[in-house]
Amino acid sequence: MSDTSAASTNAHHLTTPNTVVSTSKAAARIRVAAAEAFAENGYGGTTTRDIAARLGLSPAAMYPHYKSKEELLFAISYEGHLKCVELLTEADEPGAAPTARLVSVVSAFTSWQATHHVRGMVVQYELTALSPEHYREILTLRREISRIIERIIREGAQDGSFVVPDVAGVNLAINSLCVDVCRWFPGGGFTDPDAVADLYAELALRLVGATR
Amino acid sequence: MSDTSAASTNAHHLTTPNTVVSTSKAAARIRVAAAEAFAENGYGGTTTRDIAARLGLSPAAMYPHYKSKEELLFAISYEGHLKCVELLTEADEPGAAPTARLVSVVSAFTSWQATHHVRGMVVQYELTALSPEHYREILTLRREISRIIERIIREGAQDGSFVVPDVAGVNLAINSLCVDVCRWFPGGGFTDPDAVADLYAELALRLVGATR
Repeated sequence: MSDTSAASTNAHHLTTPNTVVSTSKAAARIRVAAAEAFAENGYGGTTTRDIAARLGLSPAAMYPHYKSKEELLFAISYEGHLKCVELLTEADEPGAAPTARLVSVVSAFTSWQATHHVRGMVVQYELTALSPEHYREILTLRREISRIIERIIREGAQDGSFVVPDVAGVNLAINSLCVDVCRWFPGGGFTDPDAVADLYAELALRLVGATR
Repeated sequence: MSDTSAASTNAHHLTTPNTVVSTSKAAARIRVAAAEAFAENGYGGTTTRDIAARLGLSPAAMYPHYKSKEELLFAISYEGHLKCVELLTEADEPGAAPTARLVSVVSAFTSWQATHHVRGMVVQYELTALSPEHYREILTLRREISRIIERIIREGAQDGSFVVPDVAGVNLAINSLCVDVCRWFPGGGFTDPDAVADLYAELALRLVGATR
């Protein structure tokens, strides 16, 4: 329980100091247009002029909101990662059994990656374009996501709900499965995020060796 | 057995009509330089001039080998996918038990993705930049890879080695796990491709519900 409270506090703390994800409607529109441009042409193949043009703006009109393409990428990435931290924190039910908690968290994470797969691709695959400082901020959020799932696996292994030879390795695999959904979805016969979420919750239980 | 022979024939057939993966040393050097450039700056952020400059060549000197950036991307992607088809075909042992076959094939695929993670990222994440015709050729190879693994899962489910409620879904997950290695490796405490390969072979057995 104390561990979980720490996670909520962290998630809250992480929203406080960062003002790059502005709540203004204009800034939000710019982030959406930028994410679409990055998804279509790659970060390296997109200019701030391209992004402004999508909105019928001059590059100068965008400047008060975002000073550079990198700052925009960071804002999009930060927003996406923070949403996932919040989503998983909310999906986790610290009082419930590890099996129910894993199902809930993996379903939520999978469903998000499927629903937001275009933005997810940008968020996941352009990380190397971030400045070192911004990259570190994103890593903090990624570790938080990983920790939420790892905590459930560890608690399940401790109370006998799961049989896990390698908690860190299984956690890595579950995170990898969920994140990779944005690369292939829709595909493989799946067009409904909920259907993938149900399958992956079931497969996560297999990966942790749920005894039920 | 007949299914597996068909796979080998396909793999052989696929190498025959395609001359884009030239065996000349100059062409191979250009592919390596292009893959590095794409990995560092993205496909959209790279010009043929950048690639030529890495080799101290003029763009004109590159032209006899590759006429465009897209043709280079296709050659790199085709080469990577074909290597995987050959590798998995070789790793599969049609006479062996499904459990041993799955371990062998998943280990080989995982190890390749870890070892060639830089090229893997380019191969996996720039597919949308291919021309429709080239994209279709790559899809044919991807389906071949997927079929090799799916055939083992199906045969294991049939002979009682595996308990699989959804063969296609589990196959998708195993492919996804293996492919996503190139995104995060090295990482999560893993620096040795063989260690990830061992873990993932074990996890693939869990995903198929291996009864052993």
